[in-house]
Amino acid sequence: MNTLEAITARRAIKHYDPTHRLTEAEIRQLFEAAMQSPTAFNIQHWRFVAVTDPEVRKQIRAVAWDQAQVTDASLLIVLCADKDAWKKDAGRYWKDAPQPVQDFLVPAIGGYYEGREQVQRDECMRSTGLAGMTIMLAAKAMGYDSCPMDGFDFDAVAKIINLPEDHLISFMIAVGKGTQPAWPKPGQLSYEEVVIANTF
Amino acid sequence: MNTLEAITARRAIKHYDPTHRLTEAEIRQLFEAAMQSPTAFNIQHWRFVAVTDPEVRKQIRAVAWDQAQVTDASLLIVLCADKDAWKKDAGRYWKDAPQPVQDFLVPAIGGYYEGREQVQRDECMRSTGLAGMTIMLAAKAMGYDSCPMDGFDFDAVAKIINLPEDHLISFMIAVGKGTQPAWPKPGQLSYEEVVIANTF
Repeated sequence: MNTLEAITARRAIKHYDPTHRLTEAEIRQLFEAAMQSPTAFNIQHWRFVAVTDPEVRKQIRAVAWDQAQVTDASLLIVLCADKDAWKKDAGRYWKDAPQPVQDFLVPAIGGYYEGREQVQRDECMRSTGLAGMTIMLAAKAMGYDSCPMDGFDFDAVAKIINLPEDHLISFMIAVGKGTQPAWPKPGQLSYEEVVIANTF
Repeated sequence: MNTLEAITARRAIKHYDPTHRLTEAEIRQLFEAAMQSPTAFNIQHWRFVAVTDPEVRKQIRAVAWDQAQVTDASLLIVLCADKDAWKKDAGRYWKDAPQPVQDFLVPAIGGYYEGREQVQRDECMRSTGLAGMTIMLAAKAMGYDSCPMDGFDFDAVAKIINLPEDHLISFMIAVGKGTQPAWPKPGQLSYEEVVIANTF
């Protein structure tokens, strides 16, 4: 599917065929697409939890306002990030670059994040947003629908998926075969309100 | 361009043809694509500052480690968000929905964000990440390259673009005609490190 077409055709779909499951190859294609998304300093700190176990899905649904797509979609993804990725053997993010590039960039990573808790957290949210959009557009191109979700109890989901202390959850995406179209767009802002020329 | 192809072909490009400018129609197409990106509760809180004025570009470059793409790319976008958008006449985000949907959803918006500063900020970062990926993939499909950037002095750029007090900056994207290919990927993590089955 053409990229601009996928961007327009993608909508948040809430109702899915519960009998449909993605193949292993499709799941891999989806995450390999996600892994093409950019991260600052190439730290690739996103961690994608692919929830296929129906029991885990049921537990998550119970702490996600009982939303049907959590159990009924073909795949549920919890988009997490390792907020300490920048200090975990950072050399490996640049191991294939020319030595002078490595020598310059690798030490700069620590210099940028060290002691800046909010910057670290912002980066996690931004990077998972970038990767999440890639996932939803790739899904659309593969013939699937999706639904981004942040209406759930984050702490409860963290417990269910056994989230490490130094990781955080950004949002979830359900992916599958939609059975009902989305509502018409409910209230689009004007171009003029959203796009600002040069300065506010 | 095919979506999966655009996802793979997009790379962060640093060198641009400084004589090339996007047309008004192309700029509009890019932002209309961006505006298709999802936001929680449809609050559409992203604000895209399209910097075309060479003088403003020069000022931003001076506080962005003198990176050439800031002035040389065809377009520089500062991705901002209005962190109070959820409480600014929230009814308009659902004005075209059926009345029962409006009655249920509009009050829920305040209930979700009220008094939750970190949640509000996380949402800004996530939404601008989602929109930013749309911009970069749309640009690729339109024949352009892009470069996401968060290496700059955020406070200084906020001053230059006259950012309102209740807005924040998430990151910047340069868009234009690339003149040099990207480096080969410098150190990709393995699929197994990034994709987790069911629980950590």
